[in-house]
Amino acid sequence: MEQQQKQRPGPAGLPRRNKVPRTEANMDQRTYRLYVNKTQSLVCVVGTELRVSLNKCSPIGSKFFSVKCTPTVQCRVVPAAVAGDSLFSPQTLTRNSVLFISMGAASKLPNESKLSVKFYGSKKEALGNAVLHLTAVEISLDVDADRDGIVEKNNSNKASWKWGPNGHGAVLLVNCDSESYYKKRVDTEKEEISKVSENMLLKLFMQDYPLVLNKEQLAAEVPYLGGNSELEFFVEGLRFPDKDFEGLVTISLSLLEPSAQDFPETPIFTDKVVFRVAPWIMTPNTLKPVEVFVCSTSDNYEFLKGIRKMVQSSGYKLKICHEYMNRGDRWMQDEIEFGYIDSPHQRFPVVLDSPRDGDLQEFPYEVLLGPDFGYVTRYAQAEEVSSLDSFGNLEVSPPVTVNGKNYPLGRIIIGVAFPTTAHGRNMTKVVQDFLWAQKVQEPIALYSDWLVVGHVDEFMTFVPAPDRKGFRLLLASPDAAYTVFTNLQNNGHGKAKLFQGKGEEISVNEILSNEEFRAENIYVQSCIDWNRDVLKKELGLDEDDIIDLPILFKVMAEENRAVAYYPDMVNMIVLGTNLGIPKPFGPQVNGSCALETEMRSLLEPLGLNCTFIDDFASYHKLLGEVHCGSNVLREPFAFKWWNLEM
Amino acid sequence: MEQQQKQRPGPAGLPRRNKVPRTEANMDQRTYRLYVNKTQSLVCVVGTELRVSLNKCSPIGSKFFSVKCTPTVQCRVVPAAVAGDSLFSPQTLTRNSVLFISMGAASKLPNESKLSVKFYGSKKEALGNAVLHLTAVEISLDVDADRDGIVEKNNSNKASWKWGPNGHGAVLLVNCDSESYYKKRVDTEKEEISKVSENMLLKLFMQDYPLVLNKEQLAAEVPYLGGNSELEFFVEGLRFPDKDFEGLVTISLSLLEPSAQDFPETPIFTDKVVFRVAPWIMTPNTLKPVEVFVCSTSDNYEFLKGIRKMVQSSGYKLKICHEYMNRGDRWMQDEIEFGYIDSPHQRFPVVLDSPRDGDLQEFPYEVLLGPDFGYVTRYAQAEEVSSLDSFGNLEVSPPVTVNGKNYPLGRIIIGVAFPTTAHGRNMTKVVQDFLWAQKVQEPIALYSDWLVVGHVDEFMTFVPAPDRKGFRLLLASPDAAYTVFTNLQNNGHGKAKLFQGKGEEISVNEILSNEEFRAENIYVQSCIDWNRDVLKKELGLDEDDIIDLPILFKVMAEENRAVAYYPDMVNMIVLGTNLGIPKPFGPQVNGSCALETEMRSLLEPLGLNCTFIDDFASYHKLLGEVHCGSNVLREPFAFKWWNLEM
Repeated sequence: MEQQQKQRPGPAGLPRRNKVPRTEANMDQRTYRLYVNKTQSLVCVVGTELRVSLNKCSPIGSKFFSVKCTPTVQCRVVPAAVAGDSLFSPQTLTRNSVLFISMGAASKLPNESKLSVKFYGSKKEALGNAVLHLTAVEISLDVDADRDGIVEKNNSNKASWKWGPNGHGAVLLVNCDSESYYKKRVDTEKEEISKVSENMLLKLFMQDYPLVLNKEQLAAEVPYLGGNSELEFFVEGLRFPDKDFEGLVTISLSLLEPSAQDFPETPIFTDKVVFRVAPWIMTPNTLKPVEVFVCSTSDNYEFLKGIRKMVQSSGYKLKICHEYMNRGDRWMQDEIEFGYIDSPHQRFPVVLDSPRDGDLQEFPYEVLLGPDFGYVTRYAQAEEVSSLDSFGNLEVSPPVTVNGKNYPLGRIIIGVAFPTTAHGRNMTKVVQDFLWAQKVQEPIALYSDWLVVGHVDEFMTFVPAPDRKGFRLLLASPDAAYTVFTNLQNNGHGKAKLFQGKGEEISVNEILSNEEFRAENIYVQSCIDWNRDVLKKELGLDEDDIIDLPILFKVMAEENRAVAYYPDMVNMIVLGTNLGIPKPFGPQVNGSCALETEMRSLLEPLGLNCTFIDDFASYHKLLGEVHCGSNVLREPFAFKWWNLEM
Repeated sequence: MEQQQKQRPGPAGLPRRNKVPRTEANMDQRTYRLYVNKTQSLVCVVGTELRVSLNKCSPIGSKFFSVKCTPTVQCRVVPAAVAGDSLFSPQTLTRNSVLFISMGAASKLPNESKLSVKFYGSKKEALGNAVLHLTAVEISLDVDADRDGIVEKNNSNKASWKWGPNGHGAVLLVNCDSESYYKKRVDTEKEEISKVSENMLLKLFMQDYPLVLNKEQLAAEVPYLGGNSELEFFVEGLRFPDKDFEGLVTISLSLLEPSAQDFPETPIFTDKVVFRVAPWIMTPNTLKPVEVFVCSTSDNYEFLKGIRKMVQSSGYKLKICHEYMNRGDRWMQDEIEFGYIDSPHQRFPVVLDSPRDGDLQEFPYEVLLGPDFGYVTRYAQAEEVSSLDSFGNLEVSPPVTVNGKNYPLGRIIIGVAFPTTAHGRNMTKVVQDFLWAQKVQEPIALYSDWLVVGHVDEFMTFVPAPDRKGFRLLLASPDAAYTVFTNLQNNGHGKAKLFQGKGEEISVNEILSNEEFRAENIYVQSCIDWNRDVLKKELGLDEDDIIDLPILFKVMAEENRAVAYYPDMVNMIVLGTNLGIPKPFGPQVNGSCALETEMRSLLEPLGLNCTFIDDFASYHKLLGEVHCGSNVLREPFAFKWWNLEM
């Protein structure tokens, strides 16, 4: 492989730099043998040392030796010559006499440097002479191992990878965006890395050269062209870390020397760099929104109006996916999950496409994928895809510390049939494997199979808070709802009606007197309490970090699973301190909804603003709510994932 | 899952023990809710605490509460009651009043314990009463997490795995032996774990019960039978660690409580244990031999005689694989590699069967596999199997320390086409993946593709030594051979002949005057020197840890690859301090072979005894030698792999 005139000094390519600053202590040594009365040609890599055992190559009867070389060659002998004595004059040859040869800079012409070793007998008579013609080359494979966005020269840690602020090791992004919106493909599928500005680091290209390495060709020869210059390589990740791929990628560079005869070349130098492919990272509700995504359908005008008003007044962008694209599939939360990938030199959002594949399935690839917007998906294998594969069942907590262990990027939360996996529905294995393999947001499995739809966002969410851990966990709570309703009854509002104008009105008294309904909600409360205890333990939460929201559920007779009885207020959209909450249509008391009043009293003290959005007909009746029907692209964490202590 | 009369207390099963000694600090808490004016039945797991928020379940207007319970129930209230004040008398109810309930021992009968909470208004008038009927159960999933061979009670570290002498975590063996020699199968393929004494830990059996869990059934329900007893489970590993399996196995136990109505059971307690599947470990030449294996063929009588004599005089057992089994395939080294698996409760040898699959292929399965003798293999996938897949190309170093990093089990050494993988032959990927995944003997890749046969044992071996690092690395060295021959010539023995009586005699003078042959050997020396430098670096060796053996090679014109010119003395069998070395048939000087003399002078000072074994016709001419034609089962390391610092 070889050096060329440097052209575009991209921040994270793989150029090799000159002037390698190695100390004697860490110099690589190469065994070299002299053959007396032969003239040998030799390539010496700058920054390495040749080790010649003089005794082994001396003619029989040798007692002394001397060394002569041109000024471009550095020689030292061990055991050291007598101080002040020149290697020009005969030195005593011992069993352990070793000559070390190195060169400080690349040669301008082949064989331009010379070295000779003379051997002498006991009377200092000449016995033989070994002559070397030396060519120095500078070669090193370099990366941004110190993670400052700039490729540095021969970092001594470049061949290993260590997590943490005191760690080291270069980062590679999966080139999962598409360089154009027109006739697009994910860039990793392409045969070329044409967009140099992306400069992603395992397809390996040499600048202005065709593909050097890829999946099929794991090694390639590149001719050595000589000269005092650099050659820039571009590398891109092709796969995210997964069950069978830890994420570490090694690239080696070997210098081969042709043999005198027709024998194969022999290796004389090798250099190695290690990259870690950046993980896909999710963004919790506490991060700043960038854009809000919802679907427009023939029947969701009221909902859209409410969302638009709230998003605009919050100062964020609203992106509407129209019906020609969504084909009536309104569950924007369920088809995709937004995240991002990050490296010292670049970062961009990446959408994870669910194997759910509803009518919205074209949206992430056709609309979202583009320049600096990546796309990744996982296809379910033999297994059936269930409702638990929708990404309303995939959330992430804000940063937490649990028994002294930091999760500065939070923890992923999924819902499964746990702990009764024997019979229940589950999130498909390939997606679970993918999530666990990203490592930096260690997942927590909750029990969500007790719900008809089976999504964790039906009973929990996180909102920002100015105090404590910077957030609150909100949990749906039938018990909290019964407390509200009992208070209403005791205060003389038992006849207040829910669902007013929705054609199915029912009074507080009627709800409280229904023993079967009460039993269903005690059961639901026990399911949520299981998850409450798991979340407290796995996120290190106290009771005061949790707020119980008054929400009732109904257990559907057919499958013995639960759905929200009135709009499920925990299924909200969180935009900074503005909450878009499903309008509950609760009991009207003194001209206002008692459930909305309760929500405000729970959340406004935290500086949160509650906007109640009518999703009754177009979402709630279809077993989803505001959160299910929306999605939020958020800014990435300021915290860099490679600074995690693992 | 449930408790049963304990029957056979195997050392590493999965019984659950009673009398769980948990402190309040590490007690798992479970959220529990009281419903006033209802009687609730409740299962309380000994060692856990129920957390009841009194305020949340109190009737409206409650200002005080009192608690009454049977003596089997422990109650505490936070904020604590006034000192000396009994919970029997009304306490002030605050927003944060929490009642913690626990029970110290399993109940004898269901619902035998009682607890009631009374709520009072501002004038201490009774407002309501919540009554609990409690059943305490003792349940815990236990393993040998402290690695002493005995399952201990509820080790607080049982749910995680940590390397090192201060680490923890249970160990699981792959049940890869066969319980019988007759109609044998590897035990992991069987539907049952019938041999309880093996007691291996992921097929999960309950004692005297059929299979509970396996690959198809990852979760199962077991009825709760009650009682104050233990239930023993047996678990076995089914797979060795590999590219897609890190080796960690988690087993969870969950206690489900039936709901009052027909709703699904809800989880109320879960316990978790983690095992690591023991890696396959190779044994270096420095470990004590147990048995020596060779083949008997129609033409290897001389060789067998030499081997038998040496093995017997060394005091080890010789096992001969006869021709009906080997079908003329004499390369005992190449078809198999001996190793072992180890756990705190058991260990046994395991043979790794090469994908080479020569005529010896039935031998490891048919002969070696048996009770307490395991078997594992890997099948090459689409790729072609090459000569580099023979296990003469798979060796292991003695323990070393490299730049402060300890390898107390040594490092595996394989030969590959590195660094020219673009064109060369390689060891097949599945075997390489397997070796790397074992983790505890981190492999080193050498360059062996320059040889016709391509095995690392053609140019290197290790012998024990009383000094320095406890061993020497022996390397084949054409240069060392030329030094011997030049000395012979200079001492007037130039006419001494090699290969005497072998029909192809050649004199020292003839060898030294052949310039082409000299060039071939300079090339070979450069290939070996590359490996010398890699071994020095990766094993932390100094020059004085290496001995160069005088061996010449010939580069075969057809494929430009090398073979040993005379019997390759480095390809030896090492039995303690006794070395069985291919008889070189070198130049006869004063009635003895000059090469044998040189070998003795190099090795005898280390206390090693050289026996030269004639393998000329039956091995050397077929491109193999003593090592290729033999194999040694050795004792395991005293060092325990789980004590490695990783």
